[in-house]
Amino acid sequence: MVQPRSRLVRCIKFAAHAHTHPANCRPFSSQRDFPATTPLSVAHLISDEPVDNPGLVVVNGFIRSIRKQKHYAFASIGDGSSLKALQAVLAPHQAESLSTGTAVRLTGTWKPSPNSRDQSHELHIHEAGVEIIGTADPATFPLQKKYHSPEFLRTIPHLRTRVPFNSTLLRFRSDIVAATTQFFAQQGYTQTHTPIITSSDCEGAGEVFTVETAHKDKKVKDDDGSFFRSPKYLTVSSQLHLEALAQSVGNVWTLSPTFRAEKSDTSRHLSEFYMLEAELGFVDDMNEVMDLVEKLLRAITKPLPGSQVGKEILASHPTSRAHMIERRWHGMTNLEWPCITYTHAIKLLEATSRKFDHKPAWGLGLQAEHERFIAEMVGEGKTPVFITKYPKSIKPFYMLPSSISEKFETVDCFDIIVPEVCEIVGGSMREHRLEPLITSMQANGMIPLGSPSSLTDEQLGALKWYIDLRRWGSIPHGGFGLGFDRLLGYLAGVENIREIVTFPRWVGRCGC
Amino acid sequence: MVQPRSRLVRCIKFAAHAHTHPANCRPFSSQRDFPATTPLSVAHLISDEPVDNPGLVVVNGFIRSIRKQKHYAFASIGDGSSLKALQAVLAPHQAESLSTGTAVRLTGTWKPSPNSRDQSHELHIHEAGVEIIGTADPATFPLQKKYHSPEFLRTIPHLRTRVPFNSTLLRFRSDIVAATTQFFAQQGYTQTHTPIITSSDCEGAGEVFTVETAHKDKKVKDDDGSFFRSPKYLTVSSQLHLEALAQSVGNVWTLSPTFRAEKSDTSRHLSEFYMLEAELGFVDDMNEVMDLVEKLLRAITKPLPGSQVGKEILASHPTSRAHMIERRWHGMTNLEWPCITYTHAIKLLEATSRKFDHKPAWGLGLQAEHERFIAEMVGEGKTPVFITKYPKSIKPFYMLPSSISEKFETVDCFDIIVPEVCEIVGGSMREHRLEPLITSMQANGMIPLGSPSSLTDEQLGALKWYIDLRRWGSIPHGGFGLGFDRLLGYLAGVENIREIVTFPRWVGRCGC
Repeated sequence: MVQPRSRLVRCIKFAAHAHTHPANCRPFSSQRDFPATTPLSVAHLISDEPVDNPGLVVVNGFIRSIRKQKHYAFASIGDGSSLKALQAVLAPHQAESLSTGTAVRLTGTWKPSPNSRDQSHELHIHEAGVEIIGTADPATFPLQKKYHSPEFLRTIPHLRTRVPFNSTLLRFRSDIVAATTQFFAQQGYTQTHTPIITSSDCEGAGEVFTVETAHKDKKVKDDDGSFFRSPKYLTVSSQLHLEALAQSVGNVWTLSPTFRAEKSDTSRHLSEFYMLEAELGFVDDMNEVMDLVEKLLRAITKPLPGSQVGKEILASHPTSRAHMIERRWHGMTNLEWPCITYTHAIKLLEATSRKFDHKPAWGLGLQAEHERFIAEMVGEGKTPVFITKYPKSIKPFYMLPSSISEKFETVDCFDIIVPEVCEIVGGSMREHRLEPLITSMQANGMIPLGSPSSLTDEQLGALKWYIDLRRWGSIPHGGFGLGFDRLLGYLAGVENIREIVTFPRWVGRCGC
Repeated sequence: MVQPRSRLVRCIKFAAHAHTHPANCRPFSSQRDFPATTPLSVAHLISDEPVDNPGLVVVNGFIRSIRKQKHYAFASIGDGSSLKALQAVLAPHQAESLSTGTAVRLTGTWKPSPNSRDQSHELHIHEAGVEIIGTADPATFPLQKKYHSPEFLRTIPHLRTRVPFNSTLLRFRSDIVAATTQFFAQQGYTQTHTPIITSSDCEGAGEVFTVETAHKDKKVKDDDGSFFRSPKYLTVSSQLHLEALAQSVGNVWTLSPTFRAEKSDTSRHLSEFYMLEAELGFVDDMNEVMDLVEKLLRAITKPLPGSQVGKEILASHPTSRAHMIERRWHGMTNLEWPCITYTHAIKLLEATSRKFDHKPAWGLGLQAEHERFIAEMVGEGKTPVFITKYPKSIKPFYMLPSSISEKFETVDCFDIIVPEVCEIVGGSMREHRLEPLITSMQANGMIPLGSPSSLTDEQLGALKWYIDLRRWGSIPHGGFGLGFDRLLGYLAGVENIREIVTFPRWVGRCGC
C-alpha cells in the first residue's frame, strides 16, 4: 500500500484507495522561485581555504552595509556564520532597494578580488542575481551600521544577536557546550536532566522564585489548592538531585538552568543562568573533584586559539584587550593553578596595605574585592586560583567538615576564582553520614532539634528524601558547580553577564 | 613565589611569606584508609573483552544480592555502569554484615569462573578485601531484590535509579543527548540556551505556570510590586526565541526544559519535560524541516543495536517485547516513513469500520486513538508517520498558511506519530510576513483589531518583540519541537513517561 516517497514529493499516494486526493500530494510549493543551487555559507566561502572555482554561487544573508558608487555598488553580506562579511559587487541599479538589515538571496560568480586587503575573492552578482527576501526600512531599523552601546542593545535582545560579535558569542557558547559534552563522555560521566521545579531551596539561604498556576482550586482538606499541593520553587542548584544520581550510576553531570531571585543589579548576577554541575561517587579525596574541574577547563579552552570562533573573539577586541584574552586562555590551558586555603587568604588580605571597603576577617565571606586581590597576588592575574576550606559557619549545611583537626572549624570545599570575574566555580565534599547531616541541618534551623531517630517524616520536611540518601548504602562523594555564563564571559573577554546571555533576566528586567 | 603543586598536595606553600601555615597545606585526608589501586568499573571488568590478568582488582559498588553457603558466599555487585552484575566470591565470615544495598569496596583477584553461565570471570575477595562503606539495614531498605511495581518505585524517585534498569535508562538518556549534540554539530547547527522565564504563552492556549517571589514589594506607580514588574511564566516552548536566533546565526537548536500546567494525568504528559527544538532560517520548503528531523532520528537510533546501552535495553524486556523494540529501531533507522495529509487521514478515519470514542471530522484535532489507528494502518505499526497540513483553525497563530490554494484552509505543518506513543514531533513553517502575522494574532484574540500600523506598542503586548522580527530583514523559516522524553520512552520500550523522567512532576506530584 505504501510507496516510497521521493525527496521532493513527500506526500505519498495511496494507490489502492479510491479517494486519493492528488491535491494533497503535491510538493509544498516555494513561496518564491529560488534557484536550485544549494546556498553556501559566508563562513564557507571566505574561510582560509577559499572555495576554488565553485561555479554559480548562491548566498543567503543580510546586508551589513552598502557603499554605492557611480559604476559599482559594494555590499557587505553577513549570515551569522562568521564575524567577517563577504563582499558582493553589484551594478548600481541592483543596489537601489538595499539597505542595512535587508535579507537577500544573491547569485553570482566567485572571482579573485583585485585590490581587497581583507578578502581574496568577492562575489560578482549576476544581472538577475538579487532577490530581496525581507526589507529593512532604514528610517526605523534600529541596528544601523554604527556603534551601539551595550545598554541600548540590551533593550532589544531579540535583535541584538544580529550584531556580528553577538552572533560569534552564540557560536562560542555552542562550541563550548559541545566540547563539554565530549569531555564528559570521554571521562565516562553520565549526562543527566535534573528537575527545575523543586520542593526545596538547596543552599538554605538564597532567595527563590515560587511556581504556581494562575487559577488555583478551592482549598480542601490536605490540599492547599495549589497545582502541586504544596509550595514549589525554581531550582537554585541541581546538586542535591545529582547526589542521588551519583549514588546510582557513579559520576554524573548536568548543564541546567538555575534561578536566584536576588535583587543584585551587578555585572555578575542574573536571575536565570546556566550552571554546569558534576558529582563524583565513591570519592573521598577532594583533589579528585578539583582535578576534574581543572581538566575540564583546560580541555575546553585549549582549542580556542586555533578555532574559528576563538579567532573571531580576538578579532573583535582592541589589540591590548585581545592580548589579555590570550593570556587568560594561556593561563587556563598551560600554567599551574595555585591553591591556597581560605585561612591563608585571610592572612594575605590582613597583611596587605591595600584598603578594602569590607575589612577581611576570619569567619566572614570573601567579597569580590578580596577575590580580585587574591587573583592578582596569588594568581598574578594570569591563572585561576583555588581557595579551599572555608569556615563551616559561612557555608551551606551539606558540606563535609575538614577531616584534619584544624585550629578553626572548616569544611572541605573550594572555590575557583579568576581575575576580574572572581568566583566561577564552587565545589565541596558532601556530608554523607546520616547523623552529622541531621545535626548540621538542625544547626541551620532547617529541621527541629531532637535525636535523629525521634524525628518524624513531617519534621524532616521537604528534604526528607535527601536525608534518606544517607540511610542505605551511603558513599563518600563530592562535586562542583560552575557558573557557565560567567565562564563564557571570562573566556570571551565580555565582562558583563548581560551581554553573554542572549535573553538576560534580572530584577525588573525580563523583556523578551 | 608560586610553586608547582604536586598531584597529591594541592595546597602550595608561599615560601616567601613568614606566616606560612603548614597545616593548611597538608593533603586532604582520606576518611578511610582505601587501597591505592585505582578502582575499575563493573562494566569494564565484565565487558565482552574481559580484562586479562588485571592483577589486584578494586571495585566500588553496591550489593544487589547475596547468597550465603557453607563454604562460600556469592555476592552480586552493581555500580550503575552496567545492567549485569559482577559476581564476587567471599568467605562466609566476610559476608556476615553484607545485605542488599550495602555500599562496599572490594579487593580481590580476577579469576576464570568454573561454572558460571553468565560470566567468564569472578572476583575472589582477599582476606582483608571487604570494606563496608555504607550499610543498608535490610529491615528498612525499600529496594530489596524482588519485583517492585512502577507505582511503588514512583514514590521513591531518589532511590529508583538504583534499580539496574533505571540506571540503564539514565545512561541511555546521556548517550542520546551526546549523539544529538554531535549530530547537530556535524550539520553546522548552533546550540543555544533559550530562556525559561518568559513573558508570553507561545501556543496562546496552554495552561502556564506563573513565576513570582515569595516576598512582593509594595505596589507603586508603574510597578505591580512583582520581581519582574509584570507577570512572568515558565516557558511552554523555546520556539519563539529560536526564531529570533535563526534570523541571526542561521540554523539553531536547543534541548530545554519546558512546562505545561495541564492537569492531564496520563502516561504521556508531565508538567515538566525536555523538548528538543530546532529552527531553520532561509527555508521555504517544509521538506527541509521534515528531512532534518528524519535524519536526526535515524542518526541517533542507528547505533543502538550495537551499543552497550542498546543491548541492556533489549536484555531488560521479555523476548517478545525486546523484538518489538528491535522492530521500532529498525523502522526508525531503515524503513521509509510514510507521509499523509491531515485531510487524507480524516478520510481514512471516516472510511474505517473501527469505532472511536471521538468521532473524527475535518476541523477537529486528532485524538490519541486516531493517531494510533493511523500509525497502525499507514505505518503498519512499524515506522513513524508524517501527518501534514492541519486546519488553520486548530493550530497556533504563528503557522504559515499552506501555499497551494486548498479546498480547505490549512497550514504548512506536520506531526510525526509513532505506534503506541503517538505524537513525538510537531513542526511547521512560520508566518514570516508582518501583516498576516498581526491578522492571525488578531483572529486569535491576542491583540486588538485595527490596522497593523495603527496599533500601539502597548496594544501589541508581550509579543511585540516577536512581531518586530517581521519588520526588518524577515526571512522564511520553519522548525520543529520533539518531545525528548517521549522519544526516549519509545526507543527504550518504556510506555509511561513517569518512568523515563528521573524526577517526574505532574499534577499534585512533585515529591523530591
